[in-house]
Amino acid sequence: MSLTAFYPGATRHLVAVDCIIFGFDKGQLKLLIVKRSPAPYHGAWSLMGGFVDDGESLDAAAARVLKVNTGLDSIYMDQLHCYGDVDRDTGGRVISVAYYALIRISEHLPQLSPDYDAHWLTLQEIPDLIFDHGKMITDALMRLRDKAHFHPIGFELLPEKFSLPQLRNLYEEIYQRPLDKRNFRKKILSMDVLEKLDEKDKSTSKKGANLYRFDKKKYKELTERGMVFEI
Amino acid sequence: MSLTAFYPGATRHLVAVDCIIFGFDKGQLKLLIVKRSPAPYHGAWSLMGGFVDDGESLDAAAARVLKVNTGLDSIYMDQLHCYGDVDRDTGGRVISVAYYALIRISEHLPQLSPDYDAHWLTLQEIPDLIFDHGKMITDALMRLRDKAHFHPIGFELLPEKFSLPQLRNLYEEIYQRPLDKRNFRKKILSMDVLEKLDEKDKSTSKKGANLYRFDKKKYKELTERGMVFEI
Repeated sequence: MSLTAFYPGATRHLVAVDCIIFGFDKGQLKLLIVKRSPAPYHGAWSLMGGFVDDGESLDAAAARVLKVNTGLDSIYMDQLHCYGDVDRDTGGRVISVAYYALIRISEHLPQLSPDYDAHWLTLQEIPDLIFDHGKMITDALMRLRDKAHFHPIGFELLPEKFSLPQLRNLYEEIYQRPLDKRNFRKKILSMDVLEKLDEKDKSTSKKGANLYRFDKKKYKELTERGMVFEI
Repeated sequence: MSLTAFYPGATRHLVAVDCIIFGFDKGQLKLLIVKRSPAPYHGAWSLMGGFVDDGESLDAAAARVLKVNTGLDSIYMDQLHCYGDVDRDTGGRVISVAYYALIRISEHLPQLSPDYDAHWLTLQEIPDLIFDHGKMITDALMRLRDKAHFHPIGFELLPEKFSLPQLRNLYEEIYQRPLDKRNFRKKILSMDVLEKLDEKDKSTSKKGANLYRFDKKKYKELTERGMVFEI
């Protein structure tokens, strides 16, 4: 039976996905923002997005947009919210499902597709964006804060090996407030989910800072036994 | 300029809203489920839903579906998630934005529209539902638990005047586990957001249980001064 037989007369809508892409670089949280070139939004700044194709799930569309724009796949992505105000897109009605992604900039920067005029900007550097993309970023930041508190998603933004100051710095950026060095160290080490490596980061001091790795397997085991990640 | 000039060739999709409607009655958390009568899903159980119209925001569509099916407006509603798997609807591709609503059953039951074969069912009574509606309910329960912990949304499900055993009972249903009487009482009263009334609920014992009211104004004042609601 054809679709129209089931749902005659129902309105059809353009549905897009927009991606809020977070990265962490030189101690700062950054977002990947593009300068659009095709008309009618030539020169306008926006998130990366695209329409949802026929026969393509929302998750698949978001992954495709990320892949086309950055060359990356197998990246942490999660749905944020579906934006559906009638006039949100000045070009006509488009319903947009926003996703946020977390990327290790240092590992992936060289892969960034040169076809797009894409820039990693700090929160302070982000210019006015088209449509409701500014609101999407505000909402995504709030979600990232909420989620990072109870889930170890922050590690998706760090290199595989990191120092405790680097980790604290990341959380300071996510929470947008300074954190007490000692308390942070105590809290994170007490959960026993970091593996201390036999290497040091000497970029910031002569003595160097110990490097650690997040132990995913151990984290999984501990949470199965009731441990609550909280930082 | 017409829409097609801006976005030529992009696929258009059917977009629906589905409403997960929570109520609380006789000490049990319930959901409003309908038995569909029109073909092709005659006799199948499902959530209440409908297509998003032209010129109608998603929030407005969800409010309309609730109003049409229950006769109610000005009800607590929040977006849950957008479901977009290609084959989720057996009648053809439909992208669905799920919303959850919280209703005071006792106050609104008589208003329930008789045009629909709608039933308040406990979590245990809910039969197999069409499409991914079962998954939507599971996701909504999880969200309700997460949100009720830090936000006073539970009160949306209770009568204006309630006893502490009633309130604890509601949280036991939301969290799906028993709560310690004393600790619960201590925690909720220490936040100072309940107004003790000069009335008693004598339905459960001769002595009666004190009735309370949630003080929204005080809650707002306290949270503005940094108080964190947590129960």
